[in-house]
This record gives sequence, C-alpha cells and structure tokens, in this order.
Amino acid sequence: MIKAAVMGATGYAGAELVRLLSGHPEAEIVFLASHSYAGRKFSDIYPGMRTVCDITLSDDDIAKAASSGADVLFLALPAGLASSYVTPALLDRMKVIDLGADYRLHSADTYSAWYRTEHHSSELLAEAVYGLVEIHRDEIRGRRLVANPGCYTTCSILTLYPLVREGLIDPDTIVIDAKSGTSGAGRSEKLGSLFCEVNENFKAYGVATHRHTPEIEQELSAAAGRDIVLQFTPHLVPMNRGILATCYAKLRPGVSDDDVARAYSMYKDEPFIRLVDGSPETRYVKGTNTVDIGWRIDSRTGNIIAMGAIDNLGKGAAGQAVQNMNLLFGLDERTGLQIAAGSPF
Amino acid sequence: MIKAAVMGATGYAGAELVRLLSGHPEAEIVFLASHSYAGRKFSDIYPGMRTVCDITLSDDDIAKAASSGADVLFLALPAGLASSYVTPALLDRMKVIDLGADYRLHSADTYSAWYRTEHHSSELLAEAVYGLVEIHRDEIRGRRLVANPGCYTTCSILTLYPLVREGLIDPDTIVIDAKSGTSGAGRSEKLGSLFCEVNENFKAYGVATHRHTPEIEQELSAAAGRDIVLQFTPHLVPMNRGILATCYAKLRPGVSDDDVARAYSMYKDEPFIRLVDGSPETRYVKGTNTVDIGWRIDSRTGNIIAMGAIDNLGKGAAGQAVQNMNLLFGLDERTGLQIAAGSPF
Amino acid sequence: MIKAAVMGATGYAGAELVRLLSGHPEAEIVFLASHSYAGRKFSDIYPGMRTVCDITLSDDDIAKAASSGADVLFLALPAGLASSYVTPALLDRMKVIDLGADYRLHSADTYSAWYRTEHHSSELLAEAVYGLVEIHRDEIRGRRLVANPGCYTTCSILTLYPLVREGLIDPDTIVIDAKSGTSGAGRSEKLGSLFCEVNENFKAYGVATHRHTPEIEQELSAAAGRDIVLQFTPHLVPMNRGILATCYAKLRPGVSDDDVARAYSMYKDEPFIRLVDGSPETRYVKGTNTVDIGWRIDSRTGNIIAMGAIDNLGKGAAGQAVQNMNLLFGLDERTGLQIAAGSPF
Amino acid sequence: MIKAAVMGATGYAGAELVRLLSGHPEAEIVFLASHSYAGRKFSDIYPGMRTVCDITLSDDDIAKAASSGADVLFLALPAGLASSYVTPALLDRMKVIDLGADYRLHSADTYSAWYRTEHHSSELLAEAVYGLVEIHRDEIRGRRLVANPGCYTTCSILTLYPLVREGLIDPDTIVIDAKSGTSGAGRSEKLGSLFCEVNENFKAYGVATHRHTPEIEQELSAAAGRDIVLQFTPHLVPMNRGILATCYAKLRPGVSDDDVARAYSMYKDEPFIRLVDGSPETRYVKGTNTVDIGWRIDSRTGNIIAMGAIDNLGKGAAGQAVQNMNLLFGLDERTGLQIAAGSPF
Repeated sequence: MIKAAVMGATGYAGAELVRLLSGHPEAEIVFLASHSYAGRKFSDIYPGMRTVCDITLSDDDIAKAASSGADVLFLALPAGLASSYVTPALLDRMKVIDLGADYRLHSADTYSAWYRTEHHSSELLAEAVYGLVEIHRDEIRGRRLVANPGCYTTCSILTLYPLVREGLIDPDTIVIDAKSGTSGAGRSEKLGSLFCEVNENFKAYGVATHRHTPEIEQELSAAAGRDIVLQFTPHLVPMNRGILATCYAKLRPGVSDDDVARAYSMYKDEPFIRLVDGSPETRYVKGTNTVDIGWRIDSRTGNIIAMGAIDNLGKGAAGQAVQNMNLLFGLDERTGLQIAAGSPF
Repeated sequence: MIKAAVMGATGYAGAELVRLLSGHPEAEIVFLASHSYAGRKFSDIYPGMRTVCDITLSDDDIAKAASSGADVLFLALPAGLASSYVTPALLDRMKVIDLGADYRLHSADTYSAWYRTEHHSSELLAEAVYGLVEIHRDEIRGRRLVANPGCYTTCSILTLYPLVREGLIDPDTIVIDAKSGTSGAGRSEKLGSLFCEVNENFKAYGVATHRHTPEIEQELSAAAGRDIVLQFTPHLVPMNRGILATCYAKLRPGVSDDDVARAYSMYKDEPFIRLVDGSPETRYVKGTNTVDIGWRIDSRTGNIIAMGAIDNLGKGAAGQAVQNMNLLFGLDERTGLQIAAGSPF
Repeated sequence: MIKAAVMGATGYAGAELVRLLSGHPEAEIVFLASHSYAGRKFSDIYPGMRTVCDITLSDDDIAKAASSGADVLFLALPAGLASSYVTPALLDRMKVIDLGADYRLHSADTYSAWYRTEHHSSELLAEAVYGLVEIHRDEIRGRRLVANPGCYTTCSILTLYPLVREGLIDPDTIVIDAKSGTSGAGRSEKLGSLFCEVNENFKAYGVATHRHTPEIEQELSAAAGRDIVLQFTPHLVPMNRGILATCYAKLRPGVSDDDVARAYSMYKDEPFIRLVDGSPETRYVKGTNTVDIGWRIDSRTGNIIAMGAIDNLGKGAAGQAVQNMNLLFGLDERTGLQIAAGSPF
Repeated sequence: MIKAAVMGATGYAGAELVRLLSGHPEAEIVFLASHSYAGRKFSDIYPGMRTVCDITLSDDDIAKAASSGADVLFLALPAGLASSYVTPALLDRMKVIDLGADYRLHSADTYSAWYRTEHHSSELLAEAVYGLVEIHRDEIRGRRLVANPGCYTTCSILTLYPLVREGLIDPDTIVIDAKSGTSGAGRSEKLGSLFCEVNENFKAYGVATHRHTPEIEQELSAAAGRDIVLQFTPHLVPMNRGILATCYAKLRPGVSDDDVARAYSMYKDEPFIRLVDGSPETRYVKGTNTVDIGWRIDSRTGNIIAMGAIDNLGKGAAGQAVQNMNLLFGLDERTGLQIAAGSPF
C-alpha cells in the first residue's frame, strides 16, 4: 500500500483527492492537513465522506507532513506556498505531487511575471517534471517532484497538442475559448462565488491575463519547436464541474480531415482519452479522469475547431494527481480512477 | 461472475444500473434491451459510458432476455409491463429484480386502484418480496422475484420505520413532505421536463394522489401492526438527483430524545444508513447507495421532524437493485456500491 | 412625486426595492445608504442598474437619512439595527417602512426570545402596524411606521388565513413545510451560500427554531381568536428566487370543498392574489408582487393541503414594501408593481 | 393605441412578446394565434400571465390574422412559414414584423443553402428591412416588413460592427464564440432540451454550420464594404436566458485603445447599448432590451477580444421586435421596454 499525505485537504481539489485516495485499492491515507479546519475530522467538513474518511485534520505544518511516514505527499495549496515548503530534504523522504502552480513553469521569471510573487525554490524547477502524463509519461517515471498541470491547461494542451506537434496549424492564430464550472473558483467565501451571483449568469473573466496562459504556451511551444503566443479566455459556467475548451486555429494549406485524424491517433491507446465526433460534452466526463476530444474543419474559413472536455476536479486536478501517483509507483495508471460518468449526474 | 441482463436499459434508472453493474467486480452484463434504441450501442445513447459498456441494445423481447444465459434479470420498465413479462417459467431460469411498481404492493386491488391498470400476474404477488433490504433482509435471501422499492418510498419508509415500529408517534398524524430531483421524472420528452420549465422553479405535484402513497402505507402499517393512512406530497426540485423527505408526526406523550435515538439505533450496523445531526443534505448521498437520516423534536408543538435523504437513482433505484442482487447471490451487500459522495458533484 | 430613501440598499432586498422605486411613476429616490459600499455608485454594485440608478451611496448614518428630505424611509437592515435607528422624532419627519423584523412582533419579549437580542425601541411597537396589506389594509392607512412582513411569513399567513379565520381547520395540527430560493439567505459571503455548496443540493434548516415562526403564529392566532402553536420548517432550493409553502392541517369534520372555496373568496378582489387549481409554481410569480394560492382536500386523510407561492424578494420583501408605500400615500396599490411573470425567467 | 396581433404566441419568444405588449402603454393585443394550443386561453399555457392576458388563442390561420383589425402583425414561426404567409395584400393591411429568419437574408439563394428549404416569397426580400435598429434605424422607419434579427446575430453584429466599420481589425480573422441560455432552443419537446440533459452540462453545437452565420456575415460585410467570411460557434449554457458572444480578431497594426473607444463611441447615444469595462455579464441584461459591450486589447497577441451580452428573448427577439414596432409607429423607442435588470433574477 502506498502511504499518502495531503496538505490542503479541504479545498475542492484536495477533497476530491481524498475521495479518490479513499477508494484507491493500493493507497492508504496517513495524513491530512488543512489551514482552516485543523483539529476537526475531514468528514465533519465533507459529510459525504462520513464512515469513509474520518481522519482528524492536522494544521498545515510541513514538518508534520514530512514525518508522517508517507510515501507521497500531495500539495493542494495557494500559489507560492508549495515552493516554500518543498526542499531537497523533503524529497529525500517522499515523493511530492504539487497540484498548485509553483513547479509547472520551467522559468522562475515567467512564474514571477504572471503570478506576481517570488518563487521560493527555483533551484528545484529543473528537478520538477510537468505531470501531463499523456505527453511526458516517460519523463515522469522515477521523478521525485511532479507539477500536476492546471485544469484549463490540461484540457487546452491535450486538445491542441497533436495539431501543433504535426504542424497542421498556424500556431500564431490559436484562440482558446475555455469555459469552466464554478468549483474551479475554489471554496473560499468570495462574493463572486455566491450562488445568487453565479446562477443564471455567464461571463468571461481574466481576459488576456489568466495565469494558465504561459503554461499552455510552454507546452505547445515545446511541441512546435518554436515559441508560441496564443489567446486564452476563460469563462464561468453556472454548474459545479467541467471544462470545455473550444480551440480555433488556421489550418496549414492542404491539410485534410485524414491528416487531422492521423495526428490525433497518437492518443489511440491512451486509457483516459476518447476521440468523439463533434463537440464533447462536459457531462460525459464528470467525476472521471477522462478527456473527450472532438474537432471540425470549416472549409469556408480554413479553420479547425478542436474541442476538449474534462472534469476540472478530475483530470484537471485530483484525478490526474492520482494518475501521476500510479505512474510514479509502477501501478496501472487506471488504478482507482473512474472512467464511467453517470448520467444525469 | 454473476451474469446480468437489463430490460429498459436506457431510462435513467436503467442506465445508472448499467453503470453500477459495469463497475461491479462480481457481475458481468450479458444482455441489454431498450424499447427506443434497439440496435444501437448503449454507449451511443450514454456517451459517458464509451469504452466501458459498448454492448448493442436488443429490442425489449422477454424471450430474448430469458434465453440470454443471465443469472439475474433487472426490469426497469413502465408500470404494467413487468407483470406481463414475468412468469414462473422465467423465474425457473433466472432471478428477477423489478425496479418498477408491479410487484411492490401485496394487493392486486390496491395496485389497480392506484395505477389504474390490471395486474397481469397477480398470482406471483405472494412469491414476490419487497426488496427494502434494511427491513426485509432475511426474507429476501433465497427469493426469485424481488420488487425493488420506489424512490420516494425507500426514503420515507426508512426515515419513519423506527418511530412507527417502536410506537413513538401517533401514526394518524403522519405527514411526508418529499422533494425530488428531476431525474425522477424519467427521460421521456415531456413539456414539463424541459430545462426551461423546471429550472428556477419549485412546485408540488400529485398532491393527495401520488402512487407511492400505498407503498409507504403498506410497509409502515406492517411495522405498526395496524392500518396507517398518511399524507404524502411530492415536489419537484431543479436539480438532477436526490430526494429529501421531511416527515412530521405527533410524538406519543412522554417520548424523549433518548427514546428516539434508541429506536434509530436499529440501523447502527447498517452499511448504507448514517444517522446525522439535524437535516441531511441530498448532496452528501449523491451518486451513492447511502441513506442519511436526522431528526429534531419540537417541544413547543410536540412533533418530531424526521428527515431522510437518498439519491433517487442510487438507493432509490439502481443502487438498491444491486444491493438486492448482492444479497440474492450471497455477496457482501456493499460490493460495487459507492459510499463516498463527491463534493461538489 | 414621493421622495424615497433606502438604508441597506445593496442587500438583495434593498436592491430589488431600488429597482422597483426606479421604475415607479410616482416615486423618486433621493437617498441611498449602504454599510459596505458607501461612496460608490449603486450601479457599480448592481451593474444591471447602470443608466437607471447611478446615485452615490451614503454610509448608513440615520442622521443623513433623516435630513435627506425624503417622505418615506425604507430600512433593509440586519435584525436589531432598525429598532436603534427609529425614533419619534424621525417619524415626525417621514414615514418609515422597515423590511426587517424589529417591529413585526407585538411583544418585545417574544422578539427577544427568538432573536436573542434586546429591542431598542419597544415603546414604538404599539405604534407600528404589521404591513400585510391583504389582512391589515385599513389599519395601515395613516400610519407612520410599517413593519413589512417576512418572506416565509407573508406566504404562509396568506395561504392559511382564510382557513383559520373561518374555523375550517384544527389549528393545533398546522404544519408548514416551506421552501425558498437562495436569495433569501442574503448577499453576505458565507460558505453555505457558495454556488458549489447550494447547487445540486436540497436541505432543511432552522428546523423547529426559525425566527419566522412567532410571526406566523401571531397573525394566525389573531385570526383564530386563540393562541396557535404551529410547526414551521424552511428548506433551501437551488434557485435564485421564490418561496413555496406547503401547509397541512386537519379539516374540521364536515368541511366541504365549497366551504374552503368560500373562505378563499375573501381574496377575490385582491389585486395581488390569484387562486389556482392545484399547486402553484414559483416561476409564475417570479419578479412580481403576486401570491398564487391553491389547495386540495384529501378525503383519505381528512387533511387539507394548502399551497402558496411568492417571490421572496417581491411580495416577500421589496414588492410588498412598495405596496405599503402606495397605500400610505393614497396611490393605487398596483402602481409600479409588476403582475406579469416572464417565462422562462 | 397600436393594435397588435401575434402568430406563434406560445413559443418562448412569442410569449415574451405577449408579456411585453401587455405592459406596453401604447399597444393593445387584438389577436393571438398558436398552432399547438388553439382554443385555449393564453394564460392557461403561461399561468404567470393570468389576469394580465387571458385572450383565447386562435389557430394559426393567416386569414384570421389579416382580418383581425391589427395595425401590426408579429410572426414568431418556424423557418419557412412566414415566407408563405406574407403577401403584398397583407402588407397593404398591416405592418409585419417577422421574428423568424425568412426575411433576414437579402439573397434567397443564401437562405436556401443554409436553411435547406425554398423561399416562398423571395419577391418581398427587396421590400424587407433588416431590423437591427442601431444599424438601420433610418431605413426601418416607414417600412411595412421588418425582419427582426436573430439572437446570436444581434449580439455578434452589434459587438463587432464598430471595429469592422472603422477598419480596425482584419476581417479575415474573426472568430465568434457564442454561448446561449437554453430558451434559445425553444419550447419543443426534444430530448436534448430536457432538464437532466442540459443541467450541469456545457457543449458546443452546430459547429461550422449554424444558420446565424450568413446573417452575421451579411451585416458585417456591408459594414466593411467587402465580403467577410467568419467563424461562428454556438454553445449551450445551463441557464434560462442570456447570450454572451466572445469575439476575437487581429487588430490592424497601430490601432490603439483610443481608436477602439472612438469606434464604439458611435453607440454613445443609443438608449439600449451600454459600454462596460471588461466582460459584460448576461445577468445584467436579463429581462431587458439592453446590450452590454466590453473589450480588451491583448498586446501580447495583437488581438482584440470584444464581448457582448444580451437577453436572447429580449433584445435577441421580443424586445427588439417591440423596439421596431415603436420605431415604425413613431414612438420613443424605449416605450414599454425595460432597462433595469433585477439581481439576482
């Protein structure tokens, strides 16, 4: 059994991780920490987990996590905190999977520019691996520090990656119009997250400034072998979970539907990617670690419209973290991860 | 492995059953039938199940189901259909778990009065057992024909049963005010089920006439050892899943909080019942087979307010059907049934 | 033109009042105050009101309101605040309509018992009138201090009043099971009001303890000519607006459907009450000052189920406040109040 | 008083029109027709309109409408029907405002290509005017046949028009990613419109094929003085009302924020257009005839992101139809049209 610890266990991503780990046949939770609810039972905060996980929450003290006997430590913390917690000494003791943003960008300068804070352990950036399994599977195995990708980024990168890698689109024309359920805004008590402020409403936010932008650019630039600058716009959907990314780009002249299908066939053996006809729907991946991807070529405009759907708390956070854990510890990647979405759910 | 067949596989309850059976470690689906979608793959109708259950749907021909080699046949059909399908010959071949209403009421006359249709196999009523496991566990074992309880009824009966059995309340004062998510209305294309007709709305329906009334009365009368007539009012909630039943009754003079707690302690070893403090919430049982029950005594009025919450498609339909299957085939009742609810989900 | 001032203008009830007053042909807003947003424009907080009401918000200083030149002051404040603001001197200057609870209960002791705070101007309770127009129309005219009724109470009282007044039901058996949209919880940043905590959920709250209970009892006791103690249970519905109250009581022996219809005919000339067949639906009164009331007698149980629906921010708060203003100033009660609900809305 | 007739009165757009006309101080409804509900009262179908509009619905017989004595006939009918109803003789009797698509495209061939049906009165296309008031105000006055624009198109055209007219963007790079509430799908009983199929879901549809595309292209091409081919993708949002269009285009080199502001200043005196900072939100225009428009220039990508929000049943259908009526009959355009959106609503 893998012994697992989670810091930031009572945020939405952390709690989903606790739920997945509780049902994982090869994992056992040995430590949970929460800044806000230290001293209370996890199931007092998430009563849906009563009888399943009644562990008492520790305060978020990295020393306690380090001495918890865990084999793997998951961090689901606000930006800047993980990078002040992780040290080489910690990594000598246990593997770390960070669900936050601190180790995702290779460049500390880019991090500082977008997150407006210093990076507290930039010397570890070279050691960290970007944990998008379908792209970096071989690099992840054997690592000690995994940067679990962001939700919008997971969806956007996986949707566009085959097109960029195969050079089928003009990377200077990429527009990603993404839409997320409200759990992406987290569990903090903000006016803009109130039911009556979100329900029966639709809006864009973070236009031209959202922090997931450089993460998408980093990965797609690597795929293209050149720097890519792209447009990313997130929107808020009045639903709990789910991301749909509608991605636009000009096709290179002469690119056919078959060429596109061939590019996407790189995913054909992926256990968590399904290629669909037309638009995917977020409900079909809700509660799962699955990515559904579809596309259309518009011969009138010369554009391709590629669309991806994930569960922002599943493949976009906790599910992918478990997938990374499975990979790090030599398990079948699918262990403990649900593929079948209920309907309606 | 238990070989399972499902007729009515593409309704919401049927589809949830297919999802649960697909993840059940001791069951294997050998036959699925659908009146509306015969010839198509199950996963074409429910794309969230792609790669999980791609079985082709048969037409709803009972002869095909009977010769499918199944050990157990689940029926999720409109009222009146199951009773015309089930025969002693069928029961010689395979166990039958009926998710519909046809075998729930012991009296064919009561059935006809509330359902306004003849019963087509009333001779089998004596053989059928009412599959509310927590109440009838011992009677269910070894049976061939299980009437899986209704959604409102499961929630209402389990909430009130201890109070009635122990004689703590005046059974002539029972009022059950129940609220259900919209999946309870099924997947048929009715005006009243359209998003824009349900969303941002709340209403009662079937006031004084809902068909689940006699089912609740039957079971609580048996518990009381006398006939009970009670008030049951369902309401429609703008959400996908979940039932909350708020139940009112006058307490017998002198009944204390301890007496009530003692009555509910009959559930203390039940794997799928949790006693909670105050009102349960439907989200904490969503997607599970769990029942959460809480209560309050109001010393001002002399009433007890007992509240139960279930997932109408889980414990209220497919989950309970799997629980019954587990019981019939000697498995741990929890096999393949989720207890942990995601949050938010 | 009536000059109107509002304190507490940026809560949901206050803002709805500002919206109604802005569209009122005989009213003009001269002063708006907000504890949280003093110094900002009202339309910065409620951008849907841009170009309609761009008044700058004052801080919530009662002296400023008193010297604003208003003819009427609306208070939409937390419990206990209004009673410390209103004085005879203020009432000499302007009429006051309090949307809060401070002047609704005739007894300061009952107020203290349920609200757990002292009343700061109990000497004014005798002067205040309970502003439920359909019941107290004649008493309201000419008053200076109107206690605008609560949302649950408006709905519950109007639904049950005719039955109680005519002695058609046993008042010791009344159960009110009420359900409200989430705007009833207000605009404060509470965890329990977050979208992801409310959406796809249903629960009861304040069971046996909700503060609207004594207000309902006060009015129905007056109608009955004897003290009534009743059961009131509120629930939270995942929608923005609307209250449905499902009310149960034993009918007196021999009471017929005609007797009930005759009792409700007291409302036949009321501009804001519609009698409907069966259950009302909250959507049909959304955004309006209308009350829809329906009922069913259940001959099996001897109960009547009477159901009322209102918009909690309309007839349950701001709409009724405007109706009171119209009455105080001699206008047609309907002035500036919408009757037609959009669908869907 | 303007005498108004409506055919297709019981669809969502038709019913919103009836609601607006009922509250219009200068209009009077003299005739309502419905294919599905002929013989019933309008308020039986829309109980929220009881006491407001209890007119009995006629069948959809154009001869009856023609002899109804109406001054203006609104048509809210499926594609192809209006063009078979409208004749020069009808137009001699009354003005016609068609909320459908039949007269929006100047070219019958384009109509046939996108709508896959013949046009039944293409000789009237030259007489029809495209009723987007803010663009074609002067042409609309005095006409007899107004093609009321589509919902997506109204929002998209008004958002992009100033940029295209002033030549600030490269029209070959336009991408419109639009999202609509579910009332846009109409009131017909389709599986895909069921609550449980829409709620908690987000998807694209009609990718590269949606019929509103040529309508947007027609109007923006006219503004540009050259043919424009653009990308338009609609999505379905789990809410009742509202459209947000997020529009992308490459800015011409050297275009500044001031240039953009100057272009949008063409709307500065428009009674129904508000320029906002950043993303508009659909809730702020819900129930109104208002268009909120905001934009951001992204200096990293060289793109402008222009965003518009409307109520699809308001400015996107019934509100704009009333605005057109006001214009045709010489009234203030704002008459009977609400500007203030409630919040929450």
